[in-house]
Amino acid sequence: MSSLIFRQLYECESCTYTYLLGDSKSREAILIDPVRETVERDLKLLGELGLKLKFILDTHIHADHVTGASALRERTGAKTAVSSLAKVDCADLSLSEGDEISWGPFRLKAIATPGHTDSCMSYFGEGMVFTGDSLMIRGTGRTDFQQGSSDRLFDSITLKLFKLPPDTRVYPAHDYKGIMSSTIGEEMKHNPRVGGGRSREEFAKIMSELKLTQPKKIHEALPANLACGRGSGKI
Amino acid sequence: MSSLIFRQLYECESCTYTYLLGDSKSREAILIDPVRETVERDLKLLGELGLKLKFILDTHIHADHVTGASALRERTGAKTAVSSLAKVDCADLSLSEGDEISWGPFRLKAIATPGHTDSCMSYFGEGMVFTGDSLMIRGTGRTDFQQGSSDRLFDSITLKLFKLPPDTRVYPAHDYKGIMSSTIGEEMKHNPRVGGGRSREEFAKIMSELKLTQPKKIHEALPANLACGRGSGKI
Repeated sequence: MSSLIFRQLYECESCTYTYLLGDSKSREAILIDPVRETVERDLKLLGELGLKLKFILDTHIHADHVTGASALRERTGAKTAVSSLAKVDCADLSLSEGDEISWGPFRLKAIATPGHTDSCMSYFGEGMVFTGDSLMIRGTGRTDFQQGSSDRLFDSITLKLFKLPPDTRVYPAHDYKGIMSSTIGEEMKHNPRVGGGRSREEFAKIMSELKLTQPKKIHEALPANLACGRGSGKI
Repeated sequence: MSSLIFRQLYECESCTYTYLLGDSKSREAILIDPVRETVERDLKLLGELGLKLKFILDTHIHADHVTGASALRERTGAKTAVSSLAKVDCADLSLSEGDEISWGPFRLKAIATPGHTDSCMSYFGEGMVFTGDSLMIRGTGRTDFQQGSSDRLFDSITLKLFKLPPDTRVYPAHDYKGIMSSTIGEEMKHNPRVGGGRSREEFAKIMSELKLTQPKKIHEALPANLACGRGSGKI
C-alpha cells in the first residue's frame, strides 16, 4: 500500500483549497496554497498526523486571500517555494519549469502555466496536478488583471496541462460550486471555456466578455503575498 | 486499476457533503446525501461522467437541509434508500443493518449507528465509511433533539465504527472547518469527544454542555425530508 497521505482542505471565505501531502513512513509533508486564516487548523492537523512540514508551495501570487506561507514557516521551519517569475525576495526557493519538490519517496514537478498571472506554476506528480488558478473545474482563472493574458493561458492549458495523462486528477486552488476535483480527460471534454476543441479565438472572446468584479481582498492580498504573507498587507 | 469513481461534493449553505460513487465499466452510480439545492449540479456531473444513477442513499432524516432524493428519483428513475427506522413511506428501499447497496462490482453495507437520530445509518465498503451525522471529523452529531441519545451514539461509535479497520477513510455528512475526510484510526486517537479512550460518562457530559441553537431550517427540513424531499416542506 502506498504511504502517500493526501488531504484536501477548504477555506470557505475565499473558497480556497489547500492541499496537504505527506508520507506515512518518513513523516515528511508539504502544503500547497495554505491560507493565513486556517494556519492553526493546518498546524493542528499536521501535528495529529505526526507529520513534519518540509515545503510550503504557492501556485501563484494570490489576489483573493493572504497566503499562510510565512506564518507556517515561522512555526515549523519549513521552506517556502514559489515561481522565480513572481519576483518575491522572501521565498526560500524560487522555482523554474522542471524543478522538483520531494517529500519521502514522492515528488511533484513544477510546470510553468502563465496566463492568469505571469508566475502561475502548476505542480504535477503522483497521478495528480495542482493547477492553482490556471485550469479550474469546468473553468479557468481570470485573465483581466495581474499580467493576465488569455493567449498565454490558452497555451498553458492546451499545450501543457492537456498533454498530461487523461486520468490525472486535477486539483485547483478554488471552486465555487462545491466540486472538489476533476481529471484532465474530463476538462479536455467538458471545460466550457477551453475544452471540446475550442479555439484560441473562442477562448479569448469568452474571457473578454466575463465582466468580473475585482476580488474583495485584492488591495490587502497582493502586497501581503508579495511579502510571502507577512505583516498586515495593508497599503 | 480500479474502476471506482469517487467524488466528494459540497453544499456551502448547510456545509453538507454529498458523495458520488460510480463504476467506470458498468457506468452505474450512487449518490449519498444529495441536497435539493444542488440537484442540477449533481445531474450535470453524472451526465458528463456518463453515469447512470442507480441508488440515492440518505444517512438519516436531516434537520438542516432538504434532501435531493425525490427530485433526483423523478429525473433519473433511481431508487431512494433510507433506514427502515426512519419510518418514511416514500422511500423505495427501507434498509436494515447488514443490507447491501451495490453498483457495478462495488458495494456498501449498512451499519445502524443511532444516537444523533434513531434512524442514522452509516455505509461501509471499498475502504470508506460514510458516517452521516454520527461520527464526524474531530466531532460527532448532536444528541439534543430528534430522538438524540448520547448513550446510543457512544455505543454506535465505539462498538461499531471504531471496530472498522483503522485505515478506513471517514466521510461525514458535514464539516464546519473545511476538513474533508479523516480515518477511523485518527478519530479513535484525536476525536475530542469520543476518542483517546474517553468514557461514556465523559461523552455524556460533553454532549450535555454543548448549548447548541436549533438548525435554521429545521421546521422546513424535517417535514420535507420525511416526504423524501418532495413538496415545499412547509408546515
